Amino acid sequence: MDAKTLELIILPAGVIAILFALYLARDVLRRDQGTTEMQDVAGTIFEGAVAFIRRQYSTIAILALLGALIIGGVITTFETKAVADTDIYGIDLGARTGIAFLVGAACSMASGIIGMYISVRSNVRTASAAQRSLVEAVQVAMRGGAVSGFLVVSLSLLGVYLMFVAFGGFDHPAQAPFLIVGYGFGASFVALFAQLGGGIYTKAADVGSDLVGKVEAGIPEDDPRNAGVVADLVGDNVGDCAGRGADLFESTAAENIGAMILGVGVYAIALQAGWPNPEAWIFFPLVVRAFGLLSTILAIFFVRGREDENPMNMLNRGYWVTTGLSVIGLAITTNVMMQTAGQTGANGLPTWVFFFGAGVVGLATSVAFVYITQYYTAGSFRPVREIAEASRTGPATNIIAGTAVGYETTFATAVTIGIALFMSHWLGDQAGLVDANGRNVGGVFGTAVATMGMLMTTAYILAMDTFGPITDNAGGIAEFSRAEQGAREITDRLDAVGNTTKALTKGYAIASASLAAFLLFSAYIDKVNLILGRQIAAGKEGVQLMTSVNLADVSVFIAALLAAMLVYFFSSLAIRAVGTTAQSIIVEVRRQFREMPGIMDYSVRPDYARVVDITTAAALRQMVAPGLVAVGAPIIVGVLLGYQAVAGMLMVGTIAGVLLATVLNNGGGAWDNGKKYIEAGHLVDGSGNVIGKKTEAHAAAVVGDTVGDPFKDTAGPSLHVLVKLLATITLVLAPLFIR
Amino acid sequence: MDAKTLELIILPAGVIAILFALYLARDVLRRDQGTTEMQDVAGTIFEGAVAFIRRQYSTIAILALLGALIIGGVITTFETKAVADTDIYGIDLGARTGIAFLVGAACSMASGIIGMYISVRSNVRTASAAQRSLVEAVQVAMRGGAVSGFLVVSLSLLGVYLMFVAFGGFDHPAQAPFLIVGYGFGASFVALFAQLGGGIYTKAADVGSDLVGKVEAGIPEDDPRNAGVVADLVGDNVGDCAGRGADLFESTAAENIGAMILGVGVYAIALQAGWPNPEAWIFFPLVVRAFGLLSTILAIFFVRGREDENPMNMLNRGYWVTTGLSVIGLAITTNVMMQTAGQTGANGLPTWVFFFGAGVVGLATSVAFVYITQYYTAGSFRPVREIAEASRTGPATNIIAGTAVGYETTFATAVTIGIALFMSHWLGDQAGLVDANGRNVGGVFGTAVATMGMLMTTAYILAMDTFGPITDNAGGIAEFSRAEQGAREITDRLDAVGNTTKALTKGYAIASASLAAFLLFSAYIDKVNLILGRQIAAGKEGVQLMTSVNLADVSVFIAALLAAMLVYFFSSLAIRAVGTTAQSIIVEVRRQFREMPGIMDYSVRPDYARVVDITTAAALRQMVAPGLVAVGAPIIVGVLLGYQAVAGMLMVGTIAGVLLATVLNNGGGAWDNGKKYIEAGHLVDGSGNVIGKKTEAHAAAVVGDTVGDPFKDTAGPSLHVLVKLLATITLVLAPLFIR
Repeated sequence: MDAKTLELIILPAGVIAILFALYLARDVLRRDQGTTEMQDVAGTIFEGAVAFIRRQYSTIAILALLGALIIGGVITTFETKAVADTDIYGIDLGARTGIAFLVGAACSMASGIIGMYISVRSNVRTASAAQRSLVEAVQVAMRGGAVSGFLVVSLSLLGVYLMFVAFGGFDHPAQAPFLIVGYGFGASFVALFAQLGGGIYTKAADVGSDLVGKVEAGIPEDDPRNAGVVADLVGDNVGDCAGRGADLFESTAAENIGAMILGVGVYAIALQAGWPNPEAWIFFPLVVRAFGLLSTILAIFFVRGREDENPMNMLNRGYWVTTGLSVIGLAITTNVMMQTAGQTGANGLPTWVFFFGAGVVGLATSVAFVYITQYYTAGSFRPVREIAEASRTGPATNIIAGTAVGYETTFATAVTIGIALFMSHWLGDQAGLVDANGRNVGGVFGTAVATMGMLMTTAYILAMDTFGPITDNAGGIAEFSRAEQGAREITDRLDAVGNTTKALTKGYAIASASLAAFLLFSAYIDKVNLILGRQIAAGKEGVQLMTSVNLADVSVFIAALLAAMLVYFFSSLAIRAVGTTAQSIIVEVRRQFREMPGIMDYSVRPDYARVVDITTAAALRQMVAPGLVAVGAPIIVGVLLGYQAVAGMLMVGTIAGVLLATVLNNGGGAWDNGKKYIEAGHLVDGSGNVIGKKTEAHAAAVVGDTVGDPFKDTAGPSLHVLVKLLATITLVLAPLFIR
Repeated sequence: MDAKTLELIILPAGVIAILFALYLARDVLRRDQGTTEMQDVAGTIFEGAVAFIRRQYSTIAILALLGALIIGGVITTFETKAVADTDIYGIDLGARTGIAFLVGAACSMASGIIGMYISVRSNVRTASAAQRSLVEAVQVAMRGGAVSGFLVVSLSLLGVYLMFVAFGGFDHPAQAPFLIVGYGFGASFVALFAQLGGGIYTKAADVGSDLVGKVEAGIPEDDPRNAGVVADLVGDNVGDCAGRGADLFESTAAENIGAMILGVGVYAIALQAGWPNPEAWIFFPLVVRAFGLLSTILAIFFVRGREDENPMNMLNRGYWVTTGLSVIGLAITTNVMMQTAGQTGANGLPTWVFFFGAGVVGLATSVAFVYITQYYTAGSFRPVREIAEASRTGPATNIIAGTAVGYETTFATAVTIGIALFMSHWLGDQAGLVDANGRNVGGVFGTAVATMGMLMTTAYILAMDTFGPITDNAGGIAEFSRAEQGAREITDRLDAVGNTTKALTKGYAIASASLAAFLLFSAYIDKVNLILGRQIAAGKEGVQLMTSVNLADVSVFIAALLAAMLVYFFSSLAIRAVGTTAQSIIVEVRRQFREMPGIMDYSVRPDYARVVDITTAAALRQMVAPGLVAVGAPIIVGVLLGYQAVAGMLMVGTIAGVLLATVLNNGGGAWDNGKKYIEAGHLVDGSGNVIGKKTEAHAAAVVGDTVGDPFKDTAGPSLHVLVKLLATITLVLAPLFIR
């Protein structure tokens, strides 16, 4: 088999994955919808979710349209100026970038909307299945989640591929990757607002309805008398499902394009050396991801088990199948596509072997992150125990312990990423890819292959992630509709597993963002040098290619300082937005309690929809400020301090963002499970008596849990998106920063 | 006047400052010591402080001795290897560095010990003066604090000067600055352990005795029945006084040496161009600091006012006098010492004018930080109000609001530093300092001059800082000895002012650390190039001078990632150390309550000394782990990833450390004052009723205050030291990182 044949797999794999998603959707939708009470609640959640989605995505669509126009205009103006009136493409790059931006934005929105639609349809069916069987409930939730996973990944794959082909990828493979960077930016742009809006919504609804219900009115969590409770259930979907979907859509798209840009460098080497199918180095990321999709499809059938089994084991089984098949797919792809006509790397080993190794490093990194996240956020290990113990001396010590744990988690994160980057770079370095200027481009390409290896399992990870809000909702529906005890026990077990899978996905998103940083950053340098090279060719004086990002340059240092500040400032805005939005909910629920006194004795049904509406409006208003800061900061720095400074901003922003996201996500997760640890009765005093619910310690742990909410579900996940947005925005707007 | 004459000021200025400190000490010590009860408590505090100091500094002395031996050995081994057996000095550099290290460590310890000795002698005299007059109390506390300030700054100045002279500064001015880097490292080393040990002690004593006294036994804060209360009062001295003194001793020493190293570059230019007194460029930092000391001496006499005046105004008056006189001193120094024989900078302006401007930028930065810190941590502004308001819905919202405020403070910090660096660099760039290779060295030298300008006011700032623990203790003594109401009102007012001055000092320390980052980092490059240059001269192949710190290099990127992680991990260890130490206190106080039941009815006096002893031992044990991490991390990274990577670690570690310290210090300060805001009766509900002490809101604010304690007094200040330690350790151990 040769590379050309293998490239033919991309389109069918994407289409098959979509068809498979449709099959899963049909399978889920045709299932039993449970009791009338269940359908009633589920219907309300569905309506709320649709209302949010409609308002949010119309806002985002308008913003995206504006963005496309501005970007197109800017690029047309500055690209032309930067290349001194020489446009080697013979077409208007600004228009192309604007179109790519819109297509990326549209694909991201489509996958978010459809995925969430299925998710809010799966919840009630999971609740219903829980009345019969654990295994069936797991399968319904996982299949519902998988619809989202497959759609996100296949739309991203097909989108990049079709844009690449449409912009001349077959005829000019070395130019086309640069033309489609707008696609990644469009995806980031949507992801930023989807994650911010969804994250603010979900936690404001959670915190707001808890404060007014549990604290003020003294009624239990998820109680139907609380007018905010439906908004809370809707929130799980818009935050975890739509938000994370957009996040990983962006990751796969942007990192794929970045890897193709780096492939251009190897393409030039292959062309010169006369290797067969030089363009295979550019197509490589697409083919690898196609194999990843196929592996995931097979793995879905392995999500099965016994009734008495831990549901996490069933999900893990599928994950390991995905990973195992991905390794095989990686071996085939590297072996077939990385042909070097007999030239070898170090120790006489063929070139492809090194990149196969790099890809395995990427897969191993994702496995490592799954375990690190479990250690820090799951109930049975030291960090969570420490937080639970600290709750015994009150909320202050609980917060201090949780902060210490959150900070501590950066250690394993940074060391793992450091090792992964070092190894994949080192392997690539040995592979023997030296360009015409004697520069070894293999190292950076090695990190790109590692990233692509890691992203092979994205669809599966996303399916597990969406499993979270589906089971969470199923639990809420069971509670709300007063389902029988057996069903509620099953949904509780699934909910606990869902908490873990949601945390894992965040770890995965962080790992991919940091592994990709190096690749995206190198793509930026390639892009800048493309422009500078044209300036040099056009005879512009005093222009030199960019060879380094020199931190000892004062502009770069200042940009790095501002980048590290940006992640704190952005998080501050996001956290504060949750508080402000929660206030609107509190005011409204209070009003309903006051004006509709029948609510408390169940004789009057609260106006759930109105709370959903108010939360939606407030969350969308609140997402504007952090969103503008994120988009504006790199542009301002780039214009004021130049293209090298922006590169420094991108790199240090990535480092700072990834670590702060780790602190917020894992700290929040550990607080959450510290509370669950106490609720499960694991905390005992000196005499062996259980310190459980309704104790001072439990109250302290609830404080920690509440503090962690906006950390782990609003600011943390939004930071992932911010980091990748920095990469795509600089990649697209590079011409603006070159004088 | 010529530069040579002006250089003669250094020694006398240092000596005068020490004599003035002695005069102030005598003035304070001869004052009235108050009632017998006051003397009784003060005696116990004094004993506790001495016990802590004795144990801590003997531990540190042993560590320093070990450190000196290891450093000397390493440098002898690797410096020799690095220069291929060519030692241009003709003396053993390792031994010299080891000696410089020990002298730096000894001077730092001496200033810490003496300063604290006076501080714990001033507290009771301040309490006594408060019985008579506010102005007198302010003067006693400020003069007691000034002893510490003058000793720290003059010992640092004299130490650097004498080491410089002893190591051949008059004969070989271009070589000597490199020989004394060990002095800065010694100072950092002591500062790290002084700040860590003191910071852990003070907050463990505070949190521990509060939890066991207020929460468990239900007795008020600072109640004599609480066995931990003396440890708490001792803690204020060892943390704020000894810790911050060591921190700023290190700052002034290391930054002075760094500036002299950069001066070497200008010296070479001056020598070649035939400018008068080329060595003046190296002596410049010493002379500027001498003027700073003299300005501060005069300013102390301006700390006076009316009985009904806000004490902060009296302190501010002195601060403005110091700043004003410093500007004059700066003008004289730059004008006299920066003579260029008619060569001018941009627009035909003389060279010195640009550097005078850069120095003023530094002074202005310190003023800006004073106001930024006040805005974020003082009671009347938006951030503190926000936290107080959030307390109304409980501890969780209080913590969330405080976190948002803490993160937000990075904005003003980073923007101010960015502007200061940009302006001072830009000014220096215009000054016309171009070296033989056509490299403009003025920009970096401009940032060095800005740093030196900023450090002119250090003695005054430190005096204000030590004012904090003295007045805090005075308040405690007044409370403890049941002094009359009038005296207690005065000490309360002074205590509030002391809280502000302590916060200001931290802001100042952060600003100086970040402004100096660029200078210390450039000094590191100069040092590396000195070694590489010798390797090149010795004919070693493949060696090139270091011209950039390239973030696009994978090793540099990994080092940067690890550096940003280090600041979180280190903070995690420091915060956790407070918790562990506090546990030992709780156990001991509980034991005393149990075994000595007479304590509760005042018939038995608790064993204060034993708690002090236990806290001391535990704090010193707990400081080892974070200390080793801080010292070990840069060494490991340097050895594994090389000298360029370490440079990346240094720069990104500085950025990350400065910002996290800002978050922790200001967040903690805002929480503290959020509580005070409520206690002062400023928080009102919808109907205008005051929500004061003993409300739910107040309880929530107390949680925030307790959380902020280890942030602002342990982890935050320790991070300042960590950042500067990174700079000195890499500067000294550079030979180890070059293969």
